[in-house]
Amino acid sequence: MREVAIIGVGMNDRWGELWEKSLRDLYVEAALRAIDDAGVDHIDSMYVACMSSGLFTGQEHVSSLLADYLGVAPIPAVRVESACASGGNALRLGWLEVASGASDLVLVGGVEKMTDVDGSQATLALAAASDFEWEAFNGVTFPGLYAMMARRHMHEFGTTPEQLAAASVKNHHNGTMNPVAQFQMEITVETVLNSVLVADPLHILDCSPVTDGAAAVILCPADQAKKFNSQPVKIAASAVATDAMALHSRESLVTIGSAKAAAEKAYKQAGVGPGEIDLAEVHDCFTISEICLVEDLGFTEKGKGGEFTESGATALDGRIPVNTSGGLKSKGHPVGATGVAQAIEVYKQLRGEAGKRQVKGAKRGLCHNMGGSGGTSAVHILEVM
Amino acid sequence: MREVAIIGVGMNDRWGELWEKSLRDLYVEAALRAIDDAGVDHIDSMYVACMSSGLFTGQEHVSSLLADYLGVAPIPAVRVESACASGGNALRLGWLEVASGASDLVLVGGVEKMTDVDGSQATLALAAASDFEWEAFNGVTFPGLYAMMARRHMHEFGTTPEQLAAASVKNHHNGTMNPVAQFQMEITVETVLNSVLVADPLHILDCSPVTDGAAAVILCPADQAKKFNSQPVKIAASAVATDAMALHSRESLVTIGSAKAAAEKAYKQAGVGPGEIDLAEVHDCFTISEICLVEDLGFTEKGKGGEFTESGATALDGRIPVNTSGGLKSKGHPVGATGVAQAIEVYKQLRGEAGKRQVKGAKRGLCHNMGGSGGTSAVHILEVM
Repeated sequence: MREVAIIGVGMNDRWGELWEKSLRDLYVEAALRAIDDAGVDHIDSMYVACMSSGLFTGQEHVSSLLADYLGVAPIPAVRVESACASGGNALRLGWLEVASGASDLVLVGGVEKMTDVDGSQATLALAAASDFEWEAFNGVTFPGLYAMMARRHMHEFGTTPEQLAAASVKNHHNGTMNPVAQFQMEITVETVLNSVLVADPLHILDCSPVTDGAAAVILCPADQAKKFNSQPVKIAASAVATDAMALHSRESLVTIGSAKAAAEKAYKQAGVGPGEIDLAEVHDCFTISEICLVEDLGFTEKGKGGEFTESGATALDGRIPVNTSGGLKSKGHPVGATGVAQAIEVYKQLRGEAGKRQVKGAKRGLCHNMGGSGGTSAVHILEVM
Repeated sequence: MREVAIIGVGMNDRWGELWEKSLRDLYVEAALRAIDDAGVDHIDSMYVACMSSGLFTGQEHVSSLLADYLGVAPIPAVRVESACASGGNALRLGWLEVASGASDLVLVGGVEKMTDVDGSQATLALAAASDFEWEAFNGVTFPGLYAMMARRHMHEFGTTPEQLAAASVKNHHNGTMNPVAQFQMEITVETVLNSVLVADPLHILDCSPVTDGAAAVILCPADQAKKFNSQPVKIAASAVATDAMALHSRESLVTIGSAKAAAEKAYKQAGVGPGEIDLAEVHDCFTISEICLVEDLGFTEKGKGGEFTESGATALDGRIPVNTSGGLKSKGHPVGATGVAQAIEVYKQLRGEAGKRQVKGAKRGLCHNMGGSGGTSAVHILEVM
């Protein structure tokens, strides 16, 4: 298999409630920027990560639609869906296509247009990422599922609401330094605890928002990357794993098995351990998921995630900066785009282009992208070349 | 890149209105049969081709759901969607994964559960495969789009309603010999022309039905295939291409550009021409599409598809038997499963296992799977080993 590098990236100016832009506008904008950034004059194949264009916009078959609007037909195009892990899964498929030798220049883009429906319809569309017949049909929504995980984490390990809030406060702080972020405002632990309770113990400021946005990267064989880009970033590992879809079927409510399994494969593939990761973007759809993930990815022991986060170990100047982009919480969470945008943040950090939120001397970063309540996880490890 | 073979296949007993089976039942049944048929004790990765589980059943994230219900988590699983070409696209991705060397045993399954909604909701879900904002939103449905193609074909080339009907009559005849087929009944040209007019000139018997069903294959490296299977079938070519999504944006209403582009790549990859194909499964979602496709895949000249079909050239004993399975028209069209089922029919024909519909001495077959009104096409060429 050939080694693969990222040679160009693109996103919209700012993520958020982008009523003036349609799904196709969002994707094409990010994709054209990535193509321009890479300086390539064509692409051989493209992937569209998108969770639920059907329920959000009435449109399926977005692969053909977007190849057409991007002006790249007749190249192969395919949509990839694994709920909120669609982006990470698409990145793995693009990596496989280049690694296989079938294509040299592959576009991997993610998009979600979520604000054309009202709140309850968005909640229903997102609930389609759970085991619908057993979970959503009986009334459980995602805040409810993650609230159960949080309650159990508090019960088993003494995690506090303040520790959960600390993840949100940190991510909002990082987001103030990211021009793309949907919410660029500082908050405090008190703000979180005084915000509306969505599903006890999760307040609205423990939850990632509904967002319109897109993100795109261009992949090519690592040995050709410097023709296009003086500072390409290598994909040192690409791994996807699954777990029981429904929360009630898991061995534990507080261990995200798919994250552990994908991380184990990725660390092995890259030949490194969690101690050798300089920064990580992790899937903080809710604060409790970031707490569980810093444990399951091996940055701290199981049960210590709350304390670890509260101590500042995951802050920009901490031992392992987590969600330097602002994470899903502050940057926003257009579900299909999130996994691709995580890779873009790490790419920028490794090139020293992250501005005020730059992690000094970062050489290796990890992205963890998750679908549902943990049914799917994608882990990528990126390295300077 | 490694050569890849199909070593096992599985489908449900019969496709149709399967009210007693859910989406997960259908997929797991076909997948377990494929695994059993291949005689493998594990799989390394899986693909789920599914067009619109969101609009048909409220469920997205079917990759994790089905890995879970199949009992194969934590392996990587991903859903692939390109409307009715989802199956063909998933087959290409599974082929890439094995060809790359990343995995040895890959399950590619397709599924659609379409009958849990009423007819108008099914029509709307299917219309999501068109350019929704420009086509479906303004009232065009798929029978309408294909009727325009048919009308233009008649105008340009003198194609007759009787010639369109001939495709349906042949496919129904073939379907009487396929135990899986939804409609196992002979019809005549007169039956077609006297059936309800859906969108002039297309009668209901020119249209493929709404169907529940699943199909699955197991892929492995060709050089390991005979360990599992005494008669594996090689994937000699796997190609996908796109075209303008909306019919009104095409240069011609009667040429399916994505089919031509994908076929050209596939013939080159396999090192053969259309004259060396012994049988073909083509995407007859409507009779007019089969007429156009026998032209665009190179089996006859542009404009001669009607005459060619009426002459019997595509019958079981004709020059190039087309849709020996019964095609979408008689076998049924559970959209995500169709592309995978086409490969199963060719696999069976090449192994001499097609019973009464066996094409004698078949050594090489082609599958063409299409999304929307031609926005995506996938072409595979399979060969005896």
